[in-house]
Amino acid sequence: MPQDSCLVGLIGSGIGPSLSPALHEREADRQGLRYLYRLIDIDPLGATPDQVGDLVRAARAVGYDGLNITHPCKQLVIEHLDELAPQAEALGAVNTVVFEGGRAVGHNTDVTGFAASFARGLPDAPLDRVVQLGAGGAGAAVAHAVLTLGGGHLTVVDAMPERAAGLAASLNRHFGEGRASAETPDRIEEHLARADGLVHVTPTGMAAHPGLPLPVRLLRPSLWVAEVVYRPLETELLRTARELGCATLDGGGMAVFQAADAFRLFTRREPDSTRMLADIAELAGAAAARG
Amino acid sequence: MPQDSCLVGLIGSGIGPSLSPALHEREADRQGLRYLYRLIDIDPLGATPDQVGDLVRAARAVGYDGLNITHPCKQLVIEHLDELAPQAEALGAVNTVVFEGGRAVGHNTDVTGFAASFARGLPDAPLDRVVQLGAGGAGAAVAHAVLTLGGGHLTVVDAMPERAAGLAASLNRHFGEGRASAETPDRIEEHLARADGLVHVTPTGMAAHPGLPLPVRLLRPSLWVAEVVYRPLETELLRTARELGCATLDGGGMAVFQAADAFRLFTRREPDSTRMLADIAELAGAAAARG
Repeated sequence: MPQDSCLVGLIGSGIGPSLSPALHEREADRQGLRYLYRLIDIDPLGATPDQVGDLVRAARAVGYDGLNITHPCKQLVIEHLDELAPQAEALGAVNTVVFEGGRAVGHNTDVTGFAASFARGLPDAPLDRVVQLGAGGAGAAVAHAVLTLGGGHLTVVDAMPERAAGLAASLNRHFGEGRASAETPDRIEEHLARADGLVHVTPTGMAAHPGLPLPVRLLRPSLWVAEVVYRPLETELLRTARELGCATLDGGGMAVFQAADAFRLFTRREPDSTRMLADIAELAGAAAARG
Repeated sequence: MPQDSCLVGLIGSGIGPSLSPALHEREADRQGLRYLYRLIDIDPLGATPDQVGDLVRAARAVGYDGLNITHPCKQLVIEHLDELAPQAEALGAVNTVVFEGGRAVGHNTDVTGFAASFARGLPDAPLDRVVQLGAGGAGAAVAHAVLTLGGGHLTVVDAMPERAAGLAASLNRHFGEGRASAETPDRIEEHLARADGLVHVTPTGMAAHPGLPLPVRLLRPSLWVAEVVYRPLETELLRTARELGCATLDGGGMAVFQAADAFRLFTRREPDSTRMLADIAELAGAAAARG
């Protein structure tokens, strides 16, 4: 049954600049749904990440319908939930908790969000060989999405070799041996030379981390480039790739579709992702203008 | 600084039929303020009344701006607060908690709400001798309001003599000896004969408790009659008194002004109590129609 109001929030560290409240509340306003999205930052609370369970129980007791969960709590929250949706189970990370029928159910809309954004923005992109730069938490979600979309082989590159190796091993366990391998950054050139596309999942290109994550000479027009950074929407990587003639996908789509998928889970209403894409263009632009 | 959104709730037992969410949210909507008022009923939570402190801490941790508190938690909540406003301190009961600047501050807008309603609805009513029927929690708040408004002497009548005696003793301690006395119902006639007005604070007259709380023959045109029941707005007592020519005050005013005072504390915005009085007439009527 659709609700007539909805109370949700985001638990994490350093989440003040999050665009999630605006993305969710704007869509709810257009639907005429009373909706409040609260930021529950563990830092000012003096809470440690492993107290996420207490916060989840507190939110549930005082009438929250659900929660988004972000760094550094996406893994820690799992033991406090009653049930996991398949993507969250496979990834071992939860970014969305829904309270329903007395149960707390964990989902991962980072995975479904990247997949939806990719399917919309690069529908015909070949996926036989993909290189992914970045193997952190977002990297794991994106890697799962790429292989779920039918990626043939994913080469995971990270400055921390053990992190890349861990993600590749996990992908092979889940999707079958040979679907993923780990590489160090010094060997990215030879892998990119044979790749269909590049997925970038490091902070480089954000306002606080300007610049390019790899040498421009490694790009070529036949390589598609997908970005996860969305502030700014046009990172230096994306601008350079576009100028070279590459098909590109900015990070706004993933941000929107993970929010839209969470909105659907929270409200059982269908969000209008086209309107939300317009929102994020405006919001990310405004955030960039504020510095 | 006025906020751009506000999250509040009501903690109590059996609060499902409360009109507070609608009263608060309608006024916020007219002001263009994003506002959510949640019911936090201890019964379905399986919580005991003395767990109110846990719920207050939970609400604060997950981003609530404040809470209303009702039966059976208005006294129990006090030990969990950092500070009390004067009315709450004097009464020993809190119906409103505001989280501000790292502190939880308790207020009592039942007292200020009845006072505001009385001042608006019966501005010229003499207060030398007032009889009050009912000495429960709401009765204590209303008695404090009557004496704060300048009531000369309040006779407290209750079917439970020790409850009337306790309230009278508390009033005398706070407002000065001789301001209040306790009586049993069998002596109400002689006190009413000399009184300027009658305040009714028992459940009689509510849909579930129809009827009159005292014999009609005790009413006379020169006696004003104030009611606290607001569902229905016109109780049998009020209708009878009005037909006899008494000046009357219905319970909607107290319900509205306690909500308006809480709204002001929560939001630091000025509510429009005239619009809220129109709301409660509509809401109480709708509630009565639903049975």
